[in-house]
Amino acid sequence: MTRTIIESKTKTAIIGFDQPFCVIGERINPTGRKKLAAELELGDFSTVEADALAQVAAGATVLDINSGAVFANKMAQDPRYADNNFVEPPLMKELIERVQAITDVPLCIDSSVPGALEAGLAAAEGRPLLNSVTGEEERLELVLPLVKKYNVPVVAISNDDTGISEDPEVRFAVAKKIVERAADFGIPAHDIVVDPLVMPIGAMATAGLQVFELVRKLRNELGVNTTCGASNISFGLPNRHGINNAFLPMAMAAGMTSAIMNPVALPVGPKKLDEKRAELAAAGIIIPDDIDPELLATITGMGSTKSRAGKEMEAIRAANFLTNNDPNGAEWIRTNKVASAAGTGARAGRGGRAGGRRRRG
Amino acid sequence: MTRTIIESKTKTAIIGFDQPFCVIGERINPTGRKKLAAELELGDFSTVEADALAQVAAGATVLDINSGAVFANKMAQDPRYADNNFVEPPLMKELIERVQAITDVPLCIDSSVPGALEAGLAAAEGRPLLNSVTGEEERLELVLPLVKKYNVPVVAISNDDTGISEDPEVRFAVAKKIVERAADFGIPAHDIVVDPLVMPIGAMATAGLQVFELVRKLRNELGVNTTCGASNISFGLPNRHGINNAFLPMAMAAGMTSAIMNPVALPVGPKKLDEKRAELAAAGIIIPDDIDPELLATITGMGSTKSRAGKEMEAIRAANFLTNNDPNGAEWIRTNKVASAAGTGARAGRGGRAGGRRRRG
Repeated sequence: MTRTIIESKTKTAIIGFDQPFCVIGERINPTGRKKLAAELELGDFSTVEADALAQVAAGATVLDINSGAVFANKMAQDPRYADNNFVEPPLMKELIERVQAITDVPLCIDSSVPGALEAGLAAAEGRPLLNSVTGEEERLELVLPLVKKYNVPVVAISNDDTGISEDPEVRFAVAKKIVERAADFGIPAHDIVVDPLVMPIGAMATAGLQVFELVRKLRNELGVNTTCGASNISFGLPNRHGINNAFLPMAMAAGMTSAIMNPVALPVGPKKLDEKRAELAAAGIIIPDDIDPELLATITGMGSTKSRAGKEMEAIRAANFLTNNDPNGAEWIRTNKVASAAGTGARAGRGGRAGGRRRRG
Repeated sequence: MTRTIIESKTKTAIIGFDQPFCVIGERINPTGRKKLAAELELGDFSTVEADALAQVAAGATVLDINSGAVFANKMAQDPRYADNNFVEPPLMKELIERVQAITDVPLCIDSSVPGALEAGLAAAEGRPLLNSVTGEEERLELVLPLVKKYNVPVVAISNDDTGISEDPEVRFAVAKKIVERAADFGIPAHDIVVDPLVMPIGAMATAGLQVFELVRKLRNELGVNTTCGASNISFGLPNRHGINNAFLPMAMAAGMTSAIMNPVALPVGPKKLDEKRAELAAAGIIIPDDIDPELLATITGMGSTKSRAGKEMEAIRAANFLTNNDPNGAEWIRTNKVASAAGTGARAGRGGRAGGRRRRG
């Protein structure tokens, strides 16, 4: 049984064929989050800290820390800030120290800048996951020595100097090459977590089937654990959660053992609450002006104004149970009993519906 | 590509490896539905007709018709009613005629009574699915000649004279035996839809893995389509829908091509509405006495007082897309656009959430 061990100072997360799916929280990532990047530029780590806590509360057992910020204002004053090799290493160090100070889960050090990876490895306690190496020659030569030196596991992304192939056979070959090169460095296959690359099904109709087939092959032929940026599958489509909620169990049935994803549902904001107030008013329903927003959100089935685990986590927990990685369904029963008791389990409340084929000929 | 053709007078449903998942509506079944059995005893077919329409509206492309009613009152007056061989044949005929009169989808004739199967075959227009044959010698000898005579496809349940084996290898062997015996009768494998038997994961931890493995093997080695009583998987557990919603996509990823299931969500009843009124009142919210119940149900996120497709259908549509059986996602986009427009798409509304790994090293 392949097991990848990731550790903080006090906690161990295991990615493995015989383990519950490993959820790696993706939110601490300023790439594409302009507001977060602006906060970091001002030395404000409050969103980072809130995201760390919310993701762990929602079920992440590893937190990805990406330092890919663009500091636009500083760049205007000091041209050195145009270089990520200048910006990222100290930022990675501080991100890791901040997150380590308030959570105890293992971390995943995520950067395309080798200096940031090394700064992260120096700052992280325990045995972090390094994210990532690719099949590109330069990356292999830069990253694998770090992996060996610090004795850490690494995410291997199956693209190479020719880019990302649409042919899954090529992506498998790239993954195989990385595993073999790692072996040359004395890095075992169980410390490689392959990302077979998830394409959007909106753009490539076979993207789902490709992933399922690749994961099965990576597991059976290379004996490696796998991960992916799960939500890429639904990029550009309506009701993305509906697709993600089906994709994750399907990937798990194929043998996927982890994902880099957001385990937290979007909290209900003031705008949505105002819309609901208007909707209720239009129906002749009178709401007290001073009603607690959280009460209004829950009582009208909108969700929560606070961070809460998203539906993807329910799908993952069900699939853990269905792949026999939740012994006796203990986690399923615990989380769904709690949900019912807390009054958030509208679906749980329907559990008693008799189902199935009652008698078979 | 294996294809099982099921036909009504005017419509064709195809179960196939390259087809959207075939949803066989299970609701028209008096076994275990005492109220329905009592209605049928009085010659009241209104529930049957409503269930037929609701299931088709929710996405069933085949309707299962089960005649397994117990007529308790008639039995007390006339001992012949204690015999299902007496009760079921005329009931099956009437059920089929009633359903055929108001819907145009193909039917699945479901009984353990050979006389009822034959009455159903005589009454059904087109090419119905027969449900079922097992590996029991007596059943094989009774049912396969009917399958041959009427040239219809048949559900083959993988238990035999020794009962239901907990060993999936034995269940596979039983399925293989049925396919071989059918071949002796000149019945092709593509007219056999194997039910590998779904055990509750609450009772057997490997039940999910067993089904996935069996489905893959039945498809690859016997080339047959598969079906199951999908909701059995979650029997006895809290939040059954959460498990079913993950199980169906996982089974589809393994190659399952149909299921006998309820595609309709439970409508919100007067009791639930009263509870919600009380909850709202306790929060100081004032509701007009004459508020439309449907408006109250939708505005408070409870669902609908009318029949509506359940979340399982969303999971199935997503998995159709992910297995490349929904070309260009046309059906996914159509159903989710409609859901959004109709204001029932709270989840669809969140579709714009940026997700995924924005930049990879």
